[in-house]
Amino acid sequence: MTTQVIVLNGGSSSGKSGIARCLQAVLPDPWLAFGVDALIEAMPGSGAGIEFAADGGVHVGPEFMVLEAAWAKGIAATAHAGARVIIDDVFLGGAATQERWRGVLDGLDVLWVGVRCAAEVAAGRELARGDRVRGMAEKQAEAVHQGVVYDVEVDTARAESLECARTIAHRIVTGHPAERE
Amino acid sequence: MTTQVIVLNGGSSSGKSGIARCLQAVLPDPWLAFGVDALIEAMPGSGAGIEFAADGGVHVGPEFMVLEAAWAKGIAATAHAGARVIIDDVFLGGAATQERWRGVLDGLDVLWVGVRCAAEVAAGRELARGDRVRGMAEKQAEAVHQGVVYDVEVDTARAESLECARTIAHRIVTGHPAERE
Amino acid sequence: MTTQVIVLNGGSSSGKSGIARCLQAVLPDPWLAFGVDALIEAMPGSGAGIEFAADGGVHVGPEFMVLEAAWAKGIAATAHAGARVIIDDVFLGGAATQERWRGVLDGLDVLWVGVRCAAEVAAGRELARGDRVRGMAEKQAEAVHQGVVYDVEVDTARAESLECARTIAHRIVTGHPAERE
Amino acid sequence: MTTQVIVLNGGSSSGKSGIARCLQAVLPDPWLAFGVDALIEAMPGSGAGIEFAADGGVHVGPEFMVLEAAWAKGIAATAHAGARVIIDDVFLGGAATQERWRGVLDGLDVLWVGVRCAAEVAAGRELARGDRVRGMAEKQAEAVHQGVVYDVEVDTARAESLECARTIAHRIVTGHPAERE
Repeated sequence: MTTQVIVLNGGSSSGKSGIARCLQAVLPDPWLAFGVDALIEAMPGSGAGIEFAADGGVHVGPEFMVLEAAWAKGIAATAHAGARVIIDDVFLGGAATQERWRGVLDGLDVLWVGVRCAAEVAAGRELARGDRVRGMAEKQAEAVHQGVVYDVEVDTARAESLECARTIAHRIVTGHPAERE
Repeated sequence: MTTQVIVLNGGSSSGKSGIARCLQAVLPDPWLAFGVDALIEAMPGSGAGIEFAADGGVHVGPEFMVLEAAWAKGIAATAHAGARVIIDDVFLGGAATQERWRGVLDGLDVLWVGVRCAAEVAAGRELARGDRVRGMAEKQAEAVHQGVVYDVEVDTARAESLECARTIAHRIVTGHPAERE
Repeated sequence: MTTQVIVLNGGSSSGKSGIARCLQAVLPDPWLAFGVDALIEAMPGSGAGIEFAADGGVHVGPEFMVLEAAWAKGIAATAHAGARVIIDDVFLGGAATQERWRGVLDGLDVLWVGVRCAAEVAAGRELARGDRVRGMAEKQAEAVHQGVVYDVEVDTARAESLECARTIAHRIVTGHPAERE
Repeated sequence: MTTQVIVLNGGSSSGKSGIARCLQAVLPDPWLAFGVDALIEAMPGSGAGIEFAADGGVHVGPEFMVLEAAWAKGIAATAHAGARVIIDDVFLGGAATQERWRGVLDGLDVLWVGVRCAAEVAAGRELARGDRVRGMAEKQAEAVHQGVVYDVEVDTARAESLECARTIAHRIVTGHPAERE
């Protein structure tokens, strides 16, 4: 059985999007990459139930949850229809978020990837990129991994995005962890 | 029955995205806006079967068609799951593209909207925005509407985006065309 | 004597950047386009004396004024060094802002262009573009023109960006207003 | 005497912009950051003498050189007018480019910073960011440093942007290299 969906979970500024782009480059066959940033982009400008506080906190209301759940079902349908899909998300609810995704992705072969990055390093990268509310990186760095179970874990504070992508791709192509993982 | 999906079809630089954002602002309830630009963004950087020629021509291969079809099914699933959805597309195949969407969106209440803009005007706006390959606007302005059947048509060369959005919203809210449409 | 600097003044979402790009396309010779948006981009992310209020108000402090004045002198030097320059600004102080620019641009041949757009239309475009704080367009539409004297005025609510650019270019190339201006 | 201008020189995707943003955050006083990317953005869309080849080569013609020289004089004037300035450039001509900047910045206290990044690492980051022509990073990684003399050198393959910025800031604030530099 072959992987149909790769789920990348990590805090803001942990480097998920960069890994997704590298995965698209190194994996054989084309993969579509969908991220929660694109969902937020698809929402009304006035917000629809998600708020970014000045201190980096992200507050999600019921209106957002409904749209997010429908979006997740759409991604599952895209994968069932034959497209390979990379999902780039921030599990604000930790293990509970993974449970929701498990339900939605039921019947698909999913590879769960933890994208770790020490809080201090992620906070520095948030500063360097300059397009995110300050504080998100630090608040999310550990919290999003609470209770989440992974097939592969990578650490962008210790390896470049491309190297992380190669570790993940190795697992997908061979079905086994890389030797030095 | 209430509209679940709004399909905006028009050539490049005809003003679809602006209308979509205005629709999100003027319609009661939140709507998600997905566009073909976001699909292209989700694809591998190396292209995956779509090519933008220097003269503004867009060439689509079988690899792209497969991914696009899976993406379209995902959007239909998102709508079936309860999210109201605005689709912003360029019907490169005219009536044939509409037929494909009809099949995918079967069972949903769809409002088909033609977004017209005279080729010369669209070409000028393509120049003014400065982020598109020159020539696409002119090549697509008429071609994308060939044989396509609409519930509502708007013309961004004659009305502002917000006014066009209000015309469309009136139809959705009342079920009837605006008096002066 | 030939025009060395074109100053475009208009409120937010009045269409200055689009006209600047069209001017670059229709004018013979290359022109550099610098705008106040690029200055804000060049400033520290923490702000440096400019604040965008939630209601669309823009508040500028002394720290910003110092950096802005130095930036303006730099643009004047660029023009004195032989590059043709288009400046795209929002005269928050109306006539007083023009006076400051007059001082800075002393010795250069400047064409002053008013970019008008009815407040209601600009507010609709602000909504359609979706990347600006709501309310700026309406607040600035009239205020930025108070007491300002122009060589040419264009109105983007009545003419496309490209047409406005052609009106301005005609004046530069011939030294005379277009007949139907 | 205090530093008035910081010049960051490094190849594409070596991390100059991230360091510039971190410098703006960690340095006391506001600094303006101007980069060659902003100059290219200010140029006509049709190019004005610079071409990006599909293999990552960058070809610069006389028309570009004239505009670039005028832009450089403008930045020097901005610094003379009292604004602290960070310049982020790619010395395509190596030592010859530094000589040109030396002439333009004559009379100002300049700190020359080499931003190094191993070609392989920069190429991976170019892939991860996904918005640059592939190949530029590798072609420029070594070439831009040929014969250039620096006050400080940092290596983004070995230290985070924020750490590099702190090394540079230490030198500016104390006038001496960091102990472990």
